[in-house]
Amino acid sequence: MLEKTMRMNYLYDFYQALLTPKQRSYMSLYYLDDYSLGEIAQQYEVSRQAVYDNIKRTEAMLEEYEKKLSLFQKFQKRKQLMNQLKDYVLQKYGEDKQLFDMIKELEELE
Amino acid sequence: MLEKTMRMNYLYDFYQALLTPKQRSYMSLYYLDDYSLGEIAQQYEVSRQAVYDNIKRTEAMLEEYEKKLSLFQKFQKRKQLMNQLKDYVLQKYGEDKQLFDMIKELEELE
Repeated sequence: MLEKTMRMNYLYDFYQALLTPKQRSYMSLYYLDDYSLGEIAQQYEVSRQAVYDNIKRTEAMLEEYEKKLSLFQKFQKRKQLMNQLKDYVLQKYGEDKQLFDMIKELEELE
Repeated sequence: MLEKTMRMNYLYDFYQALLTPKQRSYMSLYYLDDYSLGEIAQQYEVSRQAVYDNIKRTEAMLEEYEKKLSLFQKFQKRKQLMNQLKDYVLQKYGEDKQLFDMIKELEELE
């Protein structure tokens, strides 16, 4: 469950711009702020089932976008290579601040 | 005009997975293979106007995706930083093949 929450947080981060405002509200309350379905339903004056259906549909949409664009997958791969590169540079050229700053800038671009 | 063609080629590259098969066919014939609207119309047995409208709509969709996800913009920025990094490393640590290979691998991840 924790793993799914983390994945949804990432997918939401990458694709939220493609969602509707309502989808964004529900997802962000549920996954980022840890509200229960009941609490969201109360706040929006809709049924718990309506919130549940909306979130399930949004999750499916996010997975569909990831299947097509692979932004999360590429991000993970890039992060892994970036860490290898940083480790190597720190160990071998630890005194070269300029080199490390260039790599940091690249890393923070996401 | 050339600049627009280049931009559309890039946007198509980044977002083609979000288009329909017909949109992909028209765009790829028009922008990648340099077919005229008339030639595409003939091949698909539709009017020239229909092809034109479809391509215009697809271009607008691609720009809309770019406005939301900025994949092309981020790619350009990453490429620029990557080139700076490569230049620096080649000049200062030109003999370190392992370092250069790590950077190349990162670059080829796109």
